[in-house]
Amino acid sequence: MSKVITTQEQDYSKWYNDIVVQADLADHSAVRGCMVIKPHGYAIWEKMQAALDKMFKDTGHVNAYFPLFIPKSLFEAEEKNAEGFAKECAVVTHYRLKNDPQNPGKLIVDPEAKLEEELIVRPTSEAIIWNTYKGWIQSYRDLPLLINQWANVVRWEMRTRLFLRTAEFLWQEGHTAHATKEEAVEEAERMLNVYADFAENWLAMPVVKGLKTANERFAGAEETYCIEALMQDGKALQAGTSHFLGQNFAKAFDVKFATKEGKLEFVWATSWGVSTRLMGALIMSHSDNKGLVIPPKLAPTQVVIVPIYKTDEGLQKIRDCANKLKKQLHDKNISVKFDDRDSQRPGWKFAEYELKGIPVRAAIGERDLLDGTVEIARRDLLTKEVINMDEASDYISNLLDNIQSNLYNKALERKNKMTVTVDSYDDFKKLLDEQPGFILAHWDGTPETEEKIKEETKATIRCIPLNNLKENGVCIYSGKPSLQRVLFARAY
Amino acid sequence: MSKVITTQEQDYSKWYNDIVVQADLADHSAVRGCMVIKPHGYAIWEKMQAALDKMFKDTGHVNAYFPLFIPKSLFEAEEKNAEGFAKECAVVTHYRLKNDPQNPGKLIVDPEAKLEEELIVRPTSEAIIWNTYKGWIQSYRDLPLLINQWANVVRWEMRTRLFLRTAEFLWQEGHTAHATKEEAVEEAERMLNVYADFAENWLAMPVVKGLKTANERFAGAEETYCIEALMQDGKALQAGTSHFLGQNFAKAFDVKFATKEGKLEFVWATSWGVSTRLMGALIMSHSDNKGLVIPPKLAPTQVVIVPIYKTDEGLQKIRDCANKLKKQLHDKNISVKFDDRDSQRPGWKFAEYELKGIPVRAAIGERDLLDGTVEIARRDLLTKEVINMDEASDYISNLLDNIQSNLYNKALERKNKMTVTVDSYDDFKKLLDEQPGFILAHWDGTPETEEKIKEETKATIRCIPLNNLKENGVCIYSGKPSLQRVLFARAY
Repeated sequence: MSKVITTQEQDYSKWYNDIVVQADLADHSAVRGCMVIKPHGYAIWEKMQAALDKMFKDTGHVNAYFPLFIPKSLFEAEEKNAEGFAKECAVVTHYRLKNDPQNPGKLIVDPEAKLEEELIVRPTSEAIIWNTYKGWIQSYRDLPLLINQWANVVRWEMRTRLFLRTAEFLWQEGHTAHATKEEAVEEAERMLNVYADFAENWLAMPVVKGLKTANERFAGAEETYCIEALMQDGKALQAGTSHFLGQNFAKAFDVKFATKEGKLEFVWATSWGVSTRLMGALIMSHSDNKGLVIPPKLAPTQVVIVPIYKTDEGLQKIRDCANKLKKQLHDKNISVKFDDRDSQRPGWKFAEYELKGIPVRAAIGERDLLDGTVEIARRDLLTKEVINMDEASDYISNLLDNIQSNLYNKALERKNKMTVTVDSYDDFKKLLDEQPGFILAHWDGTPETEEKIKEETKATIRCIPLNNLKENGVCIYSGKPSLQRVLFARAY
Repeated sequence: MSKVITTQEQDYSKWYNDIVVQADLADHSAVRGCMVIKPHGYAIWEKMQAALDKMFKDTGHVNAYFPLFIPKSLFEAEEKNAEGFAKECAVVTHYRLKNDPQNPGKLIVDPEAKLEEELIVRPTSEAIIWNTYKGWIQSYRDLPLLINQWANVVRWEMRTRLFLRTAEFLWQEGHTAHATKEEAVEEAERMLNVYADFAENWLAMPVVKGLKTANERFAGAEETYCIEALMQDGKALQAGTSHFLGQNFAKAFDVKFATKEGKLEFVWATSWGVSTRLMGALIMSHSDNKGLVIPPKLAPTQVVIVPIYKTDEGLQKIRDCANKLKKQLHDKNISVKFDDRDSQRPGWKFAEYELKGIPVRAAIGERDLLDGTVEIARRDLLTKEVINMDEASDYISNLLDNIQSNLYNKALERKNKMTVTVDSYDDFKKLLDEQPGFILAHWDGTPETEEKIKEETKATIRCIPLNNLKENGVCIYSGKPSLQRVLFARAY
């Protein structure tokens, strides 16, 4: 096999990039900062979408689709939101190309086809959606409005990394409208819990639920809830956010509703989203120097069966046996691939499926047929066992559950080990360099201190954990009193 | 009920627009030519996506995702394709906004953030995809490459209509790469058959499969296959296309592969797509003056149960009975909604679900509880019957199948009745005005004649039907000899 992966120990960042490219998840494209999501990567994203979509629908949401473009005048209506995204907006200014009179066969932008008003390619859709909601909401009977959208968005980032930060990415954005503040806050918290549930039970990735500080809040939000995960290298990754938007967008777009009592009031809002960034989270939670490791619940192919044979006759016998196993697994809703390509040798296939993160590999040799056995390897631990063929499908079914929970437990153990409580700024700085991870420390609550710590250490406050213990302490930076610890880390 | 729909007889075009808006399928947006797809419309589109996606995967395709933007230099590489789309391209020229020094709180495009090379918002993705395939294809072992993408595309159309022609629309685009011409042609034909199968068995819409004339071909294709459907008003609608692209894109992007024999050859290509335009086809195939009619297989809600009650106690009894029926239907994989809202009266609900096209309505009154009956109404024929509650779930299950086939048969009958064979240009013109539909007529095979007929009558050659009988005749326009009839119509 010619594919070489940098080890995590050599260079974690290079390792990450190698996994993304070599495991066929994504690739750089000819467009600055935009990626191509390859079939294997996209299939995992489809599994994530399906799980999340069901969770959204189970909590009463429906899908819709809003325009890709936002006229500049709408975009700037909610000033804080506009200001927050202005520096990374792709802007459409023309709607036609024409032949270049100087260069036959080449095209130029037709200067006569200049738009009267520029269109912003959505970096997020609050503006266009709240402008639409204005026409949909008149009375309390129209509320709540619980809508989600699966879409692409564009944020012109200067430094990009596959999945983690790309100019274009895929995401879902929920946008809900409510009659009361309480309902909106409840919704923002509900969706945070949905994200945490997804992260833990599907991605097998423990998360800390918390609130962002004012500095780190979504532009235009009153409060931003988030889930923060810890990657293998000790850097944090924001894995999902849910915003309580107050009445900011309702006011910017003049969206009022008549209450039961006939009064006119501004509507309350939330928005919440997760993106293809979760692919990065998946990779950096579980994978190793052999390649990707996919939690079974998100694996497009959960089991691969590889025949080991010398003759065509041998292959034919193995094929009968493999197809029987395949059918048994199918009946248990397990996705299986039987790879009987004769263009590649078993060893090549083993390495390929390890690289691609398929959770379970079953190898059947001619000898196994005689013995009534099958060799079953698990991707997470790289161990294998010989099992009676009769018991294979039950064994694999249990094994998949076992791998899922093992991945979660391992990640949880790592997170716990890498979460440290610190009481002095010196220890804080030392830890960041020598043993990076989550750091729980006291902070005086001021944006100024937060900013200083960020400048000096590149660590940010990831969140104020929701389940925080109240305790008296002093800020590690300013020495001023503090009532609770917040979660610091360097982050992706 | 205050929602008023123009009748088909008054103004078909206005009727169409009323259905789209009043049945909550889509709405105009603040962005010129772009629509908002509302939850009810989007839910139908999701059903279409799920059915098509399965058909694509069953024929060996996988999904991936390619960038929204295409650098101008790549876009113009395949000249015919570029020329065909140049006039309708949205172009991104800048990547940043800044505060307007003249207008506090307003934003302007930052002139210093001008892109070195303009980016085209994809009107179709051949260019970016074939530029990517260049890196993926080296040897015959890499072929065939069978990839599909679900995406949004933008074509800056001057005259737009909801679903039928919008500046932004949602679609899928398949892009495949093959070692031989034969395989590529076979693929283009296979996907045409998939589309025809979907149109007939899901949309309940008969189609004519055919080839486009050179004039009507996709820009950059060697051959365009299409399915053409006939709407209720006698106008044709192109419902899907599948293109044999020859080696045009492989040559434009220099994509070669090593054959088994070690020779370097250009790769053969196809592309194929259907879009949210199919929503328009669905509406204009089956709906009536009461509203939308959805074929059961594409209905997000197939059955709605409406309680008719006087007291809360009555409602409670009906609820028990309704929930039992709901469960029985669920067990048969039928999607059911029980609408026990007390904010609306039964009559309002009946009208609302008729407008929204729910295939079957079951009404349960207090009297029905005593009699052990339920009133079941079918949306397609607007008839109703009283059925024993014991038999209701079986009855409804059969009824849904029956509605699906009835819709297809009715549409087929209409299409057959509205397909006329014509031998003179006078008859041709008269028919177009008095009894629009598909017209089978002889044509001399020249683009000039095709163009003239189009100019004079607005009718175009929809396709050269694939199953055409060969017969000697003379062109209705030029009198020159012809060997087969082609299918003319005015079209959407």
